[in-house]
Amino acid sequence: MSLLVVGSVAYDVIELPGREPVEVLGGSATWFSTAASFLSRPVIVAVVGTDFPEEDIAFLDGRGIDTSFIERREGLTFRWHGRYHDDMIGRDSLKTELGVFADFSPVIPQELRDSDVVCLGNIKPDLQKLVMMQTRDARFIALDTIECWIDMYRSELLSMMPRTSLFFLNDDEVRQLTGERNIFVGASRLLGMGVKALVVKKGEHGAILFDEKGIKLYPAYPVEAVVDPTGAGDSFAGGTLAYLDRIGEFDVESVRRGLAVGTVVASFCVEGFGPRAFARVRPSDLSARMARYVEMTNIDGGRILSDIDL
Amino acid sequence: MSLLVVGSVAYDVIELPGREPVEVLGGSATWFSTAASFLSRPVIVAVVGTDFPEEDIAFLDGRGIDTSFIERREGLTFRWHGRYHDDMIGRDSLKTELGVFADFSPVIPQELRDSDVVCLGNIKPDLQKLVMMQTRDARFIALDTIECWIDMYRSELLSMMPRTSLFFLNDDEVRQLTGERNIFVGASRLLGMGVKALVVKKGEHGAILFDEKGIKLYPAYPVEAVVDPTGAGDSFAGGTLAYLDRIGEFDVESVRRGLAVGTVVASFCVEGFGPRAFARVRPSDLSARMARYVEMTNIDGGRILSDIDL
Repeated sequence: MSLLVVGSVAYDVIELPGREPVEVLGGSATWFSTAASFLSRPVIVAVVGTDFPEEDIAFLDGRGIDTSFIERREGLTFRWHGRYHDDMIGRDSLKTELGVFADFSPVIPQELRDSDVVCLGNIKPDLQKLVMMQTRDARFIALDTIECWIDMYRSELLSMMPRTSLFFLNDDEVRQLTGERNIFVGASRLLGMGVKALVVKKGEHGAILFDEKGIKLYPAYPVEAVVDPTGAGDSFAGGTLAYLDRIGEFDVESVRRGLAVGTVVASFCVEGFGPRAFARVRPSDLSARMARYVEMTNIDGGRILSDIDL
Repeated sequence: MSLLVVGSVAYDVIELPGREPVEVLGGSATWFSTAASFLSRPVIVAVVGTDFPEEDIAFLDGRGIDTSFIERREGLTFRWHGRYHDDMIGRDSLKTELGVFADFSPVIPQELRDSDVVCLGNIKPDLQKLVMMQTRDARFIALDTIECWIDMYRSELLSMMPRTSLFFLNDDEVRQLTGERNIFVGASRLLGMGVKALVVKKGEHGAILFDEKGIKLYPAYPVEAVVDPTGAGDSFAGGTLAYLDRIGEFDVESVRRGLAVGTVVASFCVEGFGPRAFARVRPSDLSARMARYVEMTNIDGGRILSDIDL
């Protein structure tokens, strides 16, 4: 069992509708590993500045996350300032201060190079590729990206497809990356390039998986009130990969189950503000919600097919 | 087995993005009964004008739909003219010509008053209530409405809740009807007023059911190309109610299975233009897609819960 995530450990300044901006611990590796820590013991490779307080390291340590490979460098920690629209879905990036992240070039220590599961969180695709080249023995590699990288690094991203086990994208990103307007055509193109499975994320509406067996649907777990959607995508990936790392199986059916776990884990993320609120979810809450999600989605297909008997 | 639908039999003038307007057979009762005719033999109560051609009656008859209670009156058939936005989801109503529908006041013939299943398609709520009062022996009554009726007829709609088995609404309509911004709160208010189950429709994203057992999720069946979404909501209701009428059971679990059938039936509706294209779907296509939908949604919950063992 070994789960490595390479991504950002950062601060987010978040403006929710009608609220003052609030600064909170964030970053793709932070959210991913907090989510993953419900089921596994992730290791983070990232960089922070000298301003990064010990208490935030202590918070991650307390979750069983290995922070010993988070490098501390002279300078400021990465900061992102975002403002959510009234619908709590759309958001504008107001400011991105890279700080020490600007020169981040991840070197994977020898002892992490044989990690079973690797998450290439949303960072520059050429850096993701560097990590991929340093983790040749990984049994499962997940890749995440965002729109702003796709135009600049399309060929790097596409060159990673043969080694990518699970690619997280939204529908616009599939279109942008493949040039195909139709998601089904775009997804099958990416599968044709070697990626094992592709998850198209639809935010509050859930996700669709495209893999060698076809399509699997993951409606979002319905939450009564979304407090802050920041980190939901990373938490989705974190829950999924932690499940796979925990069971040590990476076949199609395992990935399909993993994404159901990720869906449920992500539902807790959006119900609170920041990773600390997320971490307060009890393991029993997760099991209970998982059971409810299965009840909410599963259909008695055998009965229906015999009833309709066409 | 007896399934009655009261609604419109009409013509739709439909403008799809970048296309010339095309007139096609439409109306809530037409779409509902075409969908229902895959699994049951619906009876339509509606009114058409003297302009309504025999070939369209013959089309419905050919589907096993009982058209003998469609009244023909001096005047023009109801016509709706709509223009879809580029996303093929939003649409504007350009023109609504009620014609003979303006004076429609449904009288349910004696032989239909003991129908098991009744669908009150989208017509004026006071007329729906009239039908409800004439079908006191119905075992299952479904209700559909649209935004424009809710403000004008809120009290009529709410007064029908105790007799409504299944209420089809979208999320804005739940908010508008209940005055509650939060869908969960709004849904539980309506359940508290006596409606047995409430389906919140989300178009391409599927639907959510609220009932006495909790929540059930119905992601839309993914279709590669949406040709025309007109009629999808009526087809969803048609497939659902036809299933219930076919099996003659109306408990919570049956309704939950029925909505899965409705979801799959509706997916064929959007893939073609007009009810005739829809009707060309073969029964074997419906069974095959139903089986695929079950595969796409069902999760091996037992395995996950034992794996995560929290």
